[in-house]
Amino acid sequence: MIHLESRIKKCWDLTVLVVTIGTALVIPFSVVFKNTGEPVPILLTFLSTIVFIVDMFVSFNTSFIYQGKNIEDKREVARRYLRGWFTIDLIAALPLGIILTFLLTPEGSAVHLVRVLALIKLFHVGKTMQRIGGTNVNPAILRLSLLVFWILLAAHVASCGWIFLNETPVGTQNYERYIRAFYWTITTITTIGYGDITPEGPRQTLYVIFIEILGAGMYGLVIGNIANLIANIDVAKTQYKEKLDKINTFLKYRNIPVDQQRKINDYYNYLWESRRGYDESSVLADLPGPLKQSVLLFLNKEIIEKVPIFEAAGEDLIKDIIVNMEPVVFTPGDYIVRAGEVGFDMYFISRGRVDVMSADETARYATLTAGQFFGEIALLLSMPRTATIKATEYCDLYRLDKETFDGILTRYPDFMKNIQATADARRAEIDARTQAAKKTKQKD
Amino acid sequence: MIHLESRIKKCWDLTVLVVTIGTALVIPFSVVFKNTGEPVPILLTFLSTIVFIVDMFVSFNTSFIYQGKNIEDKREVARRYLRGWFTIDLIAALPLGIILTFLLTPEGSAVHLVRVLALIKLFHVGKTMQRIGGTNVNPAILRLSLLVFWILLAAHVASCGWIFLNETPVGTQNYERYIRAFYWTITTITTIGYGDITPEGPRQTLYVIFIEILGAGMYGLVIGNIANLIANIDVAKTQYKEKLDKINTFLKYRNIPVDQQRKINDYYNYLWESRRGYDESSVLADLPGPLKQSVLLFLNKEIIEKVPIFEAAGEDLIKDIIVNMEPVVFTPGDYIVRAGEVGFDMYFISRGRVDVMSADETARYATLTAGQFFGEIALLLSMPRTATIKATEYCDLYRLDKETFDGILTRYPDFMKNIQATADARRAEIDARTQAAKKTKQKD
Amino acid sequence: MIHLESRIKKCWDLTVLVVTIGTALVIPFSVVFKNTGEPVPILLTFLSTIVFIVDMFVSFNTSFIYQGKNIEDKREVARRYLRGWFTIDLIAALPLGIILTFLLTPEGSAVHLVRVLALIKLFHVGKTMQRIGGTNVNPAILRLSLLVFWILLAAHVASCGWIFLNETPVGTQNYERYIRAFYWTITTITTIGYGDITPEGPRQTLYVIFIEILGAGMYGLVIGNIANLIANIDVAKTQYKEKLDKINTFLKYRNIPVDQQRKINDYYNYLWESRRGYDESSVLADLPGPLKQSVLLFLNKEIIEKVPIFEAAGEDLIKDIIVNMEPVVFTPGDYIVRAGEVGFDMYFISRGRVDVMSADETARYATLTAGQFFGEIALLLSMPRTATIKATEYCDLYRLDKETFDGILTRYPDFMKNIQATADARRAEIDARTQAAKKTKQKD
Amino acid sequence: MIHLESRIKKCWDLTVLVVTIGTALVIPFSVVFKNTGEPVPILLTFLSTIVFIVDMFVSFNTSFIYQGKNIEDKREVARRYLRGWFTIDLIAALPLGIILTFLLTPEGSAVHLVRVLALIKLFHVGKTMQRIGGTNVNPAILRLSLLVFWILLAAHVASCGWIFLNETPVGTQNYERYIRAFYWTITTITTIGYGDITPEGPRQTLYVIFIEILGAGMYGLVIGNIANLIANIDVAKTQYKEKLDKINTFLKYRNIPVDQQRKINDYYNYLWESRRGYDESSVLADLPGPLKQSVLLFLNKEIIEKVPIFEAAGEDLIKDIIVNMEPVVFTPGDYIVRAGEVGFDMYFISRGRVDVMSADETARYATLTAGQFFGEIALLLSMPRTATIKATEYCDLYRLDKETFDGILTRYPDFMKNIQATADARRAEIDARTQAAKKTKQKD
Repeated sequence: MIHLESRIKKCWDLTVLVVTIGTALVIPFSVVFKNTGEPVPILLTFLSTIVFIVDMFVSFNTSFIYQGKNIEDKREVARRYLRGWFTIDLIAALPLGIILTFLLTPEGSAVHLVRVLALIKLFHVGKTMQRIGGTNVNPAILRLSLLVFWILLAAHVASCGWIFLNETPVGTQNYERYIRAFYWTITTITTIGYGDITPEGPRQTLYVIFIEILGAGMYGLVIGNIANLIANIDVAKTQYKEKLDKINTFLKYRNIPVDQQRKINDYYNYLWESRRGYDESSVLADLPGPLKQSVLLFLNKEIIEKVPIFEAAGEDLIKDIIVNMEPVVFTPGDYIVRAGEVGFDMYFISRGRVDVMSADETARYATLTAGQFFGEIALLLSMPRTATIKATEYCDLYRLDKETFDGILTRYPDFMKNIQATADARRAEIDARTQAAKKTKQKD
Repeated sequence: MIHLESRIKKCWDLTVLVVTIGTALVIPFSVVFKNTGEPVPILLTFLSTIVFIVDMFVSFNTSFIYQGKNIEDKREVARRYLRGWFTIDLIAALPLGIILTFLLTPEGSAVHLVRVLALIKLFHVGKTMQRIGGTNVNPAILRLSLLVFWILLAAHVASCGWIFLNETPVGTQNYERYIRAFYWTITTITTIGYGDITPEGPRQTLYVIFIEILGAGMYGLVIGNIANLIANIDVAKTQYKEKLDKINTFLKYRNIPVDQQRKINDYYNYLWESRRGYDESSVLADLPGPLKQSVLLFLNKEIIEKVPIFEAAGEDLIKDIIVNMEPVVFTPGDYIVRAGEVGFDMYFISRGRVDVMSADETARYATLTAGQFFGEIALLLSMPRTATIKATEYCDLYRLDKETFDGILTRYPDFMKNIQATADARRAEIDARTQAAKKTKQKD
Repeated sequence: MIHLESRIKKCWDLTVLVVTIGTALVIPFSVVFKNTGEPVPILLTFLSTIVFIVDMFVSFNTSFIYQGKNIEDKREVARRYLRGWFTIDLIAALPLGIILTFLLTPEGSAVHLVRVLALIKLFHVGKTMQRIGGTNVNPAILRLSLLVFWILLAAHVASCGWIFLNETPVGTQNYERYIRAFYWTITTITTIGYGDITPEGPRQTLYVIFIEILGAGMYGLVIGNIANLIANIDVAKTQYKEKLDKINTFLKYRNIPVDQQRKINDYYNYLWESRRGYDESSVLADLPGPLKQSVLLFLNKEIIEKVPIFEAAGEDLIKDIIVNMEPVVFTPGDYIVRAGEVGFDMYFISRGRVDVMSADETARYATLTAGQFFGEIALLLSMPRTATIKATEYCDLYRLDKETFDGILTRYPDFMKNIQATADARRAEIDARTQAAKKTKQKD
Repeated sequence: MIHLESRIKKCWDLTVLVVTIGTALVIPFSVVFKNTGEPVPILLTFLSTIVFIVDMFVSFNTSFIYQGKNIEDKREVARRYLRGWFTIDLIAALPLGIILTFLLTPEGSAVHLVRVLALIKLFHVGKTMQRIGGTNVNPAILRLSLLVFWILLAAHVASCGWIFLNETPVGTQNYERYIRAFYWTITTITTIGYGDITPEGPRQTLYVIFIEILGAGMYGLVIGNIANLIANIDVAKTQYKEKLDKINTFLKYRNIPVDQQRKINDYYNYLWESRRGYDESSVLADLPGPLKQSVLLFLNKEIIEKVPIFEAAGEDLIKDIIVNMEPVVFTPGDYIVRAGEVGFDMYFISRGRVDVMSADETARYATLTAGQFFGEIALLLSMPRTATIKATEYCDLYRLDKETFDGILTRYPDFMKNIQATADARRAEIDARTQAAKKTKQKD
């Protein structure tokens, strides 16, 4: 039993595809030019008949997938095939071309038209290409490609039909006649219509009417498909742009001062530059728990490795913290923490730079950058913030709120001590600095 | 009184539709070629007049639907009809063709143009097709079909108009002239414009300008409709593809390792293959309670029949459990339950395979597959999970959380005992295995 | 001061619009055919110059709206006008045509081309039409109409240009030449291109290239607008259809039994027929409180008038109940209430029919229809439902849950007594029936 | 090291862009007309070769941006460039034109075709224009502009190709031949196809087929892009219109009285006129806290400055109140507060006018307008509303609910006293009025 999605089945499908298309190209050409005696068409006729017969055997031995399960039962497979593609495959596999060749039917007799039946195998093309393309190809692009393929094939058949309906001019070569016919078909299908080749007599006129309606419909399909494709290009950037336009119209309509408008635009530009409009949490929302955890772990690996107190933390603790951190953005000049307020959050800096300052913003104690953290003192000691912290550039921070923080601390007693030690050390340092600052002031 | 949606009314509407279209095709032809004496047009003229008169009687006796109610009051029906379609139907039913036939008006006199009035009946076509198509036909497809119908009819009328404006060439047959005129119309409407047939004199030129504007507008409508149709093809797959593209762009932009990227892609492929991107809960969200319950019951019948302890459960209990189960997906290698953790959930396996292992993953106690369940021990005994359970392939599980579980148990005391017995047996078995494992270790 | 949105201003704008369009049509015609001496163009030249000058005075005296406020300050109005449309209006109002007429400049001199400057007034057309159309016209339709207007006007100007570039053939009338030129323009713009009229010499060729690019772009705009319009036709029905398609695909994919599939389809059909896919609550969600209340009051007036116990209720009570009722739908055969269950809801029937039955469904106590209510007993007495109630057709009910019910009762003590009395009476009646049923059974 | 986004780099990019386009225009022209000896092409050939070589040096010294960071490491830059654009830039910079000029190769030899290789530099155009346009240009418009640019350039090249394939007619000037060829190309690409210039011989025919397919595809792209652009024009107004249509269909379908329908339409018109369909809260929802606060502060500055009791309030208090106020709209005639009801809200009037009246609406105590506030009495004293307040026109109010109000009062004790004083004064005033009213009544 051959598995439907095995490599060998795909190769075979590709072979059948190539032979089918080859046949579809050669048969109309061969019928119209009555070149039944030439070697290439005869060979291809033999080849295609053999390949199509073998393909039927292959189909009887290929499993199929039903509701995600691979069905390999031979009788099930046969029943499904007999009900489905069997008839079409059988007609395509009839050795009409071979029989006609052996019967040496007079060239140009209408009997040869029967060979066009083999083109029925073309119905497989869409399915096969979809199966080979799989889920990796954008369905809109696949559809447009298939459409172009069908149009070119139809143009080929229409050209042969046009040759069939026109008298043979003496002394013109077959390939020249075909090029002229194909030129006429394309000129018509693209709705250009030069008018240097026009129909004569009712038979040709009716044929042209048919091709025109077909061609115009096809061209409409092409334009519709292209419009659909374009509507889905660059959706992320278009949406971001629309959002920004909307907010700017609002700001202008309400006469918001220009510097505030510029600040808001800068903020959105930063969002776009730094994350291409993707919102981390919404992108990851659909993933099942373990996958989401591992992505978040990777994304924040860097910052966790940088924070000294996490060196001693176990993997479980890190996962707990990571899943519970909330990403926030601050723009330059925003106050993240104000001295004297009672704080509820601790922050990890992922990107950017903040200033730690005294309450009156006269003294700058420190500048913290990516990989550092702050705000843990107030959380531990239930006292007001001891310093003001201000963003000096765009900052991506991760916020850890008190509730989660307390929950995590109780679950990991070892880590609790670690944090406590760091907090004590930092408080001592700040006290010392404040003392020093006071002394300096007294001196002044 | 005939019911508006009865079978007989639909058949009659179809008859009127066919006669109307037939009349619309024959009258312009007949007027232009002045073949008033031929039998087919005369017969059709008689037939259409009779049918249109009968249709008026039918309309007076057909109920109508107002705000979901069927109104059968004769006076209401008459008033509504007189205010609405009556005038149009009356004009269409005027026996102008019959009168002209009897008067033996000279052929080709402009008087015959008056017969074109019967085409007013065509206004019914859209409504009738919509009523026959009902809610089963996609409105976009119905609109496109109607448009193509109108275009072909307009092309027919435009062709007759073109013949009317051109001198009769001697010796050409009517059908040949019609084919040439129709060829010219189609060539113009499809914007191909070969230019082998062009207008002469102001009258023809003005006519061509009119047809060109009309044709270009129609072609625009066709393309617009096709674009609209295509935009709604395969929406589910396109949306799924877009989502996957978005997540992949994000993963690449943030440099997530390739194996994690592959894992996430595999997960989405599994989702698509197993449920075509449909989210069970969102699809069923709009259904009223009882319908939703019966669908869910059917969907999970299989698994419930497989779980042994449900054999004794009544229908009400099963419904209670089914409505409260939450579908979850695990990818290969995910831990579903970890030994030592305190568990809150019980799981039913709908599809896939999980391994029950010791805490250190050295010993594999069992492999559970579709129709089996686990996790009930910790729920019953308020003790840590006794084993680690890991998905070995993609698993569709149904989760039953402790709260619902407890609620259900208290409501169904019989079932409570059943579950308790199963839990006790399983614990005994695990204890025995652990003992055996210890002994084996001691021996080693 | 004239108010911007006054009737008189709109009439004046319409006059200016008509004169502008008339001028735009006549001037190019007049310039090309050098018929400076004829009365109609001269009159129109005078008229347009006068109207345009008056329009400038009007503009200086028309208030404008800024952020919803009507500004009538004369200096503000003048400043705004001088900064905005003034220059354009001034150029359009220059009496160039009058001067040239008085100067009796030789016909056909290039100097006359300067008169085309008056066409600058056309820039007003879009604004004016938008102001007259107001918010009542669909913006997509307005845009398409304006586009068609511009295209026809451009075609007129392009035709005049074509005449200008071609030698005057001897003996052809002006109107014939114009028709031929207009025919050429339309044939080109619609991309038909018969090719019976083609350019000669570089000057004409360059002109044709320009018109072709313009025409193709315009045609693209028309198609784009039409596609956009079509995408917004019948959105409600399309969305409903898509939803139904989605649910049907799901049902088929999961092999839900055919009768359940039919039941679900029937349910959606009922929803569509009875409320055209509108969800009452979502449509009314945006309305401010009082407006919403009055709409709901009107919608449910009927049912409230039918319920006997509401006869004594005051308007405030009715409003309270109406705002707190929740619409629900039951399909035929659904159980609304089951005997023995503890009930929490009372129901008002808005449409449909339900059967009140004994617990074993053997005895049918009553059939309730639109305007009746049930379920109040269990609410009042905290006892299990005394009867089973089953929908026999599609039912639109309004549900009143216990919490709201209790809240309302405490706030309206009079009404409380009323409800209590009804409940007591009904309970007595049911008891009597049950007794009678028991006796009948005992007899059997 | 040059910064990628520096002004100098942008200028250089613009220079390269202009030279590239110039080269792309001149080279095909020059090759086809074999005018190798003329000065302009030779100069441009030299110039472009030099510019392209310099550009390679510039590229080796330009930093690049990777994940929001500016990379200036020379080796990193070189590695990135060598892997990327280097090969293309090298081919474009090959001095083929110069060599051929010096070798004095015979004019018209096929060797000159090699110079077309310099056109490979055009691959840069899209990137460069995107970088210069930045995030300020709508991506849909940028894409359409680029497309038109590419189409015109392709038309230029196709025209040169057409000249190349046609024999030189004796006595025609180069520029005339070019215009005819360009005319043919545009006529074909826009699918007009006059047919006055048609191919002869297989070589020309094949070339025409190629151009036709290309042109039709390009035209499809143009239409698709235009359709996409139009779909995004005026989205706000279209959505507003659709919403209004939907609600109107619902109102008509449910037979809501005409005056209620008009009232609802007026309400939506007011919303559109006063805020262009923007919902303040949804527009500001995405902004980070501090930015949002400053916008709201600015928007409500006016009203806060008008309310007397806020004069004494600190900035923090004002921010607290502003962030917690909820915007509400009342239509004319709506009751905002009813005498006797227990109130929970205080209101600030932002726009509009309300009447303060006695419970029976006989006496009008006051009329309040923008900048005034009411409803604080009931909040402070836990007593029923002392007056009825009714909107007399459309009112934009800000509501402050009791919970927030109490929270704010406790946090700002100074402000609490202020409010209390105002409330006491107002109560005294109302009492006095009521007394006076009673006395007047007693007198009557």
